[in-house]
Amino acid sequence: MMGGAMESFMELGNAVLAQQSFSQMMGTKLTRLTLSEAVLELPLREDMKQQHGFAHGGVLSYMADNALTFAGGIAMKGAPVVTSEFKINYVRPAVGTRLIARARPVHVGRRQAVCQCDVFAVDSERETLVAVAQGTISAMGGREE
Amino acid sequence: MMGGAMESFMELGNAVLAQQSFSQMMGTKLTRLTLSEAVLELPLREDMKQQHGFAHGGVLSYMADNALTFAGGIAMKGAPVVTSEFKINYVRPAVGTRLIARARPVHVGRRQAVCQCDVFAVDSERETLVAVAQGTISAMGGREE
Amino acid sequence: MMGGAMESFMELGNAVLAQQSFSQMMGTKLTRLTLSEAVLELPLREDMKQQHGFAHGGVLSYMADNALTFAGGIAMKGAPVVTSEFKINYVRPAVGTRLIARARPVHVGRRQAVCQCDVFAVDSERETLVAVAQGTISAMGGREE
Amino acid sequence: MMGGAMESFMELGNAVLAQQSFSQMMGTKLTRLTLSEAVLELPLREDMKQQHGFAHGGVLSYMADNALTFAGGIAMKGAPVVTSEFKINYVRPAVGTRLIARARPVHVGRRQAVCQCDVFAVDSERETLVAVAQGTISAMGGREE
Repeated sequence: MMGGAMESFMELGNAVLAQQSFSQMMGTKLTRLTLSEAVLELPLREDMKQQHGFAHGGVLSYMADNALTFAGGIAMKGAPVVTSEFKINYVRPAVGTRLIARARPVHVGRRQAVCQCDVFAVDSERETLVAVAQGTISAMGGREE
Repeated sequence: MMGGAMESFMELGNAVLAQQSFSQMMGTKLTRLTLSEAVLELPLREDMKQQHGFAHGGVLSYMADNALTFAGGIAMKGAPVVTSEFKINYVRPAVGTRLIARARPVHVGRRQAVCQCDVFAVDSERETLVAVAQGTISAMGGREE
Repeated sequence: MMGGAMESFMELGNAVLAQQSFSQMMGTKLTRLTLSEAVLELPLREDMKQQHGFAHGGVLSYMADNALTFAGGIAMKGAPVVTSEFKINYVRPAVGTRLIARARPVHVGRRQAVCQCDVFAVDSERETLVAVAQGTISAMGGREE
Repeated sequence: MMGGAMESFMELGNAVLAQQSFSQMMGTKLTRLTLSEAVLELPLREDMKQQHGFAHGGVLSYMADNALTFAGGIAMKGAPVVTSEFKINYVRPAVGTRLIARARPVHVGRRQAVCQCDVFAVDSERETLVAVAQGTISAMGGREE
């Protein structure tokens, strides 16, 4: 059943997120996880800024990396995955109370998925695009060790 | 005097790092800053991992982003800068007690610098390359708002 | 008048394309150019292949680079521009009689535009996504020399 | 014998290049191919320019793509490979009589190699860095179809 599948995606996604100690420390929440979209949210804290007072680029890149991984992982049916590579363009200073990262697969293969992600800063419920990213998510074993 | 210049680079760099609340929270240290190299180090904590027990990709991308910014900023004579964009390839799981990010400018212009960065995980003093990155650092105002 | 503006965009775009000797040699056509989209098409010839018989990755990257430049240039009101950087993911072998590259700005600033591009191979009028790209287009002078 | 291996690398590389109809049409030459470096050269013709009179970015990206592929392919022992993705930063206008692309593997796995490439324009034997690239080369089958 579709509803059941979507619930179990969220359960799976939340279980993975709970295992990421970094995401727990940051306070990241998974708010949506379907075959076509993964959405992560992060309340911005005072200890997440860079020298100009905006959210640190590293916080945005973490959100993009993580959302890409969730989008690719679920598109590859929940197989254990890692992000092989990604690229991010920062387009505006990230100012607000939280970040939202929305990622979607653009091509899904057996061992790899290529995904794109938009990162938004939210201030007084107004969303502003602050970064766009594109990357490759690989089934474990797809990245060589 | 060269030694004097290098000391003042480190002073400038440390002042910028001290203003990054995210870097303070993470525990990042600047260990070298010259016109040709920026080196950042990060002691890895338990709360910096992903679901497979390795350092989270977002931690590596933060280190790369930040080292690229320092390398580009100092190459552009300490002007206020932001990272416009970068790309990162993760090449091995990051396991160890700390990360080292070494970035260098490959081309320096008046308003932009293109830099590359290698990220290493250190375990028992043995360094392993875990990621490589390449990106554009822009003088403030170079990124549109 | 909107229709007039769109006609003059096409005139401007075609004039630029006519000045690109490489695009003339390749046989690239501009089929659409608006503030929100640039579309280039390329009939695939026998002399555009790689060793496995598909269109060469370099042909796809040329199409992406060029479409990104047109999308960014027109978004910045026809100012002289160059592509500062881009990233491309090849997602399927490019097989068919022609390529179509569709690019759109995702953020437009005064001196830079960030754009994304999808490249399709067309076989018997069926379009297949073969590559996705993302990059920065800069107003001339924005890339340092 | 090492000399023998290097000769056979060049033979293998030249055979692949001869099968790329696009490289034949462009006039690309392989001048070096070892486990640690691939070097391609391209005499610049009048029909390879963009609207400002420089070599077209697509020509540079083709050279980077191809050199990355050769570097990755030989590093993976001559297995059939494709470029999965790459990123390129253009750092100076490409002016001169030929281009040289030098690529090297930075990490070699069983199914993928991550490589970097510098592209130079040569004018009166003076080499100028015009672009830097980084990408992933995958053994055939590593890119999904």
